[in-house]
Amino acid sequence: MKMSNKLIENLSAIREQAPLVHNITNFVVMNTTANALLAIGASPVMAHALHEVKDMVNIASALVINMGTLSEEWVESMIVAGEKARERKIPVVFDPVGAGATPYRTSSALRIIETCKPNIIRGNASEIMALVDQTMLTKGVDSSVAADVALESAKILASGNNCVVVISGEIDFITDGIKVESVGFGDQLMARVTGMGCTATAVLGAFAATNPNTFQAAVFGMMVMGITGECAASKSIGPGSMQMHFIDCLYSLSEIEIEKATCILQ
Amino acid sequence: MKMSNKLIENLSAIREQAPLVHNITNFVVMNTTANALLAIGASPVMAHALHEVKDMVNIASALVINMGTLSEEWVESMIVAGEKARERKIPVVFDPVGAGATPYRTSSALRIIETCKPNIIRGNASEIMALVDQTMLTKGVDSSVAADVALESAKILASGNNCVVVISGEIDFITDGIKVESVGFGDQLMARVTGMGCTATAVLGAFAATNPNTFQAAVFGMMVMGITGECAASKSIGPGSMQMHFIDCLYSLSEIEIEKATCILQ
Amino acid sequence: MKMSNKLIENLSAIREQAPLVHNITNFVVMNTTANALLAIGASPVMAHALHEVKDMVNIASALVINMGTLSEEWVESMIVAGEKARERKIPVVFDPVGAGATPYRTSSALRIIETCKPNIIRGNASEIMALVDQTMLTKGVDSSVAADVALESAKILASGNNCVVVISGEIDFITDGIKVESVGFGDQLMARVTGMGCTATAVLGAFAATNPNTFQAAVFGMMVMGITGECAASKSIGPGSMQMHFIDCLYSLSEIEIEKATCILQ
Repeated sequence: MKMSNKLIENLSAIREQAPLVHNITNFVVMNTTANALLAIGASPVMAHALHEVKDMVNIASALVINMGTLSEEWVESMIVAGEKARERKIPVVFDPVGAGATPYRTSSALRIIETCKPNIIRGNASEIMALVDQTMLTKGVDSSVAADVALESAKILASGNNCVVVISGEIDFITDGIKVESVGFGDQLMARVTGMGCTATAVLGAFAATNPNTFQAAVFGMMVMGITGECAASKSIGPGSMQMHFIDCLYSLSEIEIEKATCILQ
Repeated sequence: MKMSNKLIENLSAIREQAPLVHNITNFVVMNTTANALLAIGASPVMAHALHEVKDMVNIASALVINMGTLSEEWVESMIVAGEKARERKIPVVFDPVGAGATPYRTSSALRIIETCKPNIIRGNASEIMALVDQTMLTKGVDSSVAADVALESAKILASGNNCVVVISGEIDFITDGIKVESVGFGDQLMARVTGMGCTATAVLGAFAATNPNTFQAAVFGMMVMGITGECAASKSIGPGSMQMHFIDCLYSLSEIEIEKATCILQ
Repeated sequence: MKMSNKLIENLSAIREQAPLVHNITNFVVMNTTANALLAIGASPVMAHALHEVKDMVNIASALVINMGTLSEEWVESMIVAGEKARERKIPVVFDPVGAGATPYRTSSALRIIETCKPNIIRGNASEIMALVDQTMLTKGVDSSVAADVALESAKILASGNNCVVVISGEIDFITDGIKVESVGFGDQLMARVTGMGCTATAVLGAFAATNPNTFQAAVFGMMVMGITGECAASKSIGPGSMQMHFIDCLYSLSEIEIEKATCILQ
């Protein structure tokens, strides 16, 4: 089967099954994350109370943990939810937003990885490098280096934690520690819309919820993000319209668009 | 007076009086809720600190409680605010987001209803049913059944709590336990925009703030949501543009559009 | 050098340096604030945990404190962050959202001013007046009086705290207690988009981060807000499209547009 066919199959599974994706994420992106998950066909839920995260994980098909606006209580909830998700064997996708920017971020990220054992970790180059080399500094939440610079770190992180690591950037890299796939879709306007990386993480949750092959789910998720980004950018005149068109394009993304985009690769 | 005239009168009252609607709501929808209230002519305020909710209720014309991203501290504030609103006899509108999804959500919702005695409860079918039959399960925050299935539950909930219950869905139902009104406006694209139900709840707050007839306010609020949804959908190509056009249409909603939409009903 | 040239220079510095602007702000506007800062060329970060605010301030070029959805823990973090920013001598911009609406808001605002010694305070007329005359009442977060009514209060506030005070309204006023500058750009549709004032505060943070002349940075920031507002309004049919176009216009704001807008003034 062609890769594009498998991607379309995975996307169709999301649209048919509408998997419940439980997000413990940051305040900045909750609205856009929920809208992206609805647009792609998933059913998003945001819940962070220690009193209920286990019960919510219990009915969810994937858990997305994003530490963008982390605080002590939220990290506790993330860990409890993550442990429950491991127990239930549903996929956990982790976004170490701003790892490397402050010691608290780096140590919280490492603690979450240690306890929740995410199936997929997605970050920008600086964040991924900071998780392996704690002397690496991140400038806030934006990367200061290109994605390929972090590839060795990503492999170490993936091997050491038996997971898939995604570095997003102009070219995205996906690795399980041994094999590496790159995805070259996307548009530079994506970097000007806040939370586009967080959206990618949530979308990976929807793909992983409906595809037992985690590596493939990660590749497909990043491909869909990139193809959608190109579609949206072609209609946009700035980051404001980009944010809107991205949701519209994700909603209407068709087999033909996917095949057209991927055929160039073959 | 024709119903459409009364609706227009209620809408004009909102636009002229700009009632202060105090929202204790969830992180996902705060921005869109505030924008919807501004668009319809109300003055929104979001405040949740235990230190100030009483004082904020004191200057408000309606209180909207939405438990979407609930936690212990927030529920305390909701209850203190709700009790103050009862004391001041300003309308309280309650949105039991995700009731039925976790025991914590269901019990918190029941506790809020018990203590705050809301004038209007608005939820989807699953949520309303979960408040009456606690063996009912909700899939996250999206309903798993059609609105009419919940009608008997809605009547029981309304009678038992002396309030108006709104079930939103493809057709909305409004009941005070005895009489039932249905509203058939709307578009299926509304379900693909996150927080559209939360927006409805907030809009009901604006209508109830300016109309002492709570049942009528609830019907008018749902009619305006539906008519606006149809207007917005006709201009939209997906949920991204839908979210934007909804605010524009709510802002510019005219007497003529309301009369045109309602005359079909007469 | 013409004022417009200096403004363009300041804007170019933001676009070239991409200053890290650390925001401790409210839940309603986090997404739009981050997008506005990205659109103008700055690098936004939102972080509020007591565990990390000092470290984040340590790598930031400006700190923006906005108390829109304040609570006890957040105010503590604001103060710790503000004190660190003073120590590092990076600009602190403060938005006393809703000061005057509740005693808690007014006292928290005064406490933040006392401890963080902001370089710029931006509010609407009601908020600024409430900080000087505590018998003044604010209706939620919207002003009940025109900007010029608050001018005397603004001067007292600026002189007493050795800072620049900005009153935003149909005409904006900027004062250091002695000199007063007014900015007449803008459009009334801006008041219908939630958090437009909060966006202004964040934009002032970006200007102050790249311009040691705080008074001038405040004037330039408000001019850019107003010119962008006019540009966006000319393309918008309501507050929904206004929110989108504002970000697009901020992103693409050109020297020619700035010169065209400001030449009318000369």
